[in-house]
Amino acid sequence: MEVRGVHHVAMAVEDLDEAVATYERLFGARVELRGRMDEQGVEAVYLRVGGGRVELVAALSEDTPVGRFLAKRGPGMHHVAFEVPDVAVAMGELAANGVEVIDPEPRNGLGGHEVSFVHPDSLHGVLAEVIGG
Amino acid sequence: MEVRGVHHVAMAVEDLDEAVATYERLFGARVELRGRMDEQGVEAVYLRVGGGRVELVAALSEDTPVGRFLAKRGPGMHHVAFEVPDVAVAMGELAANGVEVIDPEPRNGLGGHEVSFVHPDSLHGVLAEVIGG
Repeated sequence: MEVRGVHHVAMAVEDLDEAVATYERLFGARVELRGRMDEQGVEAVYLRVGGGRVELVAALSEDTPVGRFLAKRGPGMHHVAFEVPDVAVAMGELAANGVEVIDPEPRNGLGGHEVSFVHPDSLHGVLAEVIGG
Repeated sequence: MEVRGVHHVAMAVEDLDEAVATYERLFGARVELRGRMDEQGVEAVYLRVGGGRVELVAALSEDTPVGRFLAKRGPGMHHVAFEVPDVAVAMGELAANGVEVIDPEPRNGLGGHEVSFVHPDSLHGVLAEVIGG
């Protein structure tokens, strides 16, 4: 499977504005994009930190995957996103490799990128996003 | 504070060899470096995944920070590392900004890089490493 690199690393946060301000103040981060994805129950921000990218993700309600994550584990690291040329092809290869794929059909993520997720049980406890460039 | 980018994202794992094999098989990862850091109680591997870098970290014993992390939370995402030109300067700036710094004096990480850590209480639950280039 062809991976271009790490597109972003995502953190689940309680308060999006407060967390954005922290990353701006401490690391000189700049907001690249902000959006609300009702289907996933999140509001999210892409931050550029130097040449890297951090996503901050807040839950729209407690009864969402990120809301339940926060209730169970508290704020912290949430997932890593690997960029690939074609998400559907990549997910097909992963599924053929025995990986538990959360979204067999890619859906739209922040900024209109196609995204799909790999279950943490298939990657040593790590939730991985596969994202189109 | 000047940050060059995300140097790596690190995952705590139970079995280093098994996890390396998973990343190689699923994502075409290549081992860049492997080393044992007795002072930190870990054995770690840098993997290149496309143009990105993932660190896999295993505990040398249960009575280490990573051993306790694994016992409490299980394997999963552990920290993110931001690359800076000068670790001591960066940690001084962070401390002046009210950040709780775990290692005021940088120490040697994998590959001889200078590293220092920021406490998760100062970064919305995220353990952050600051690493020299």
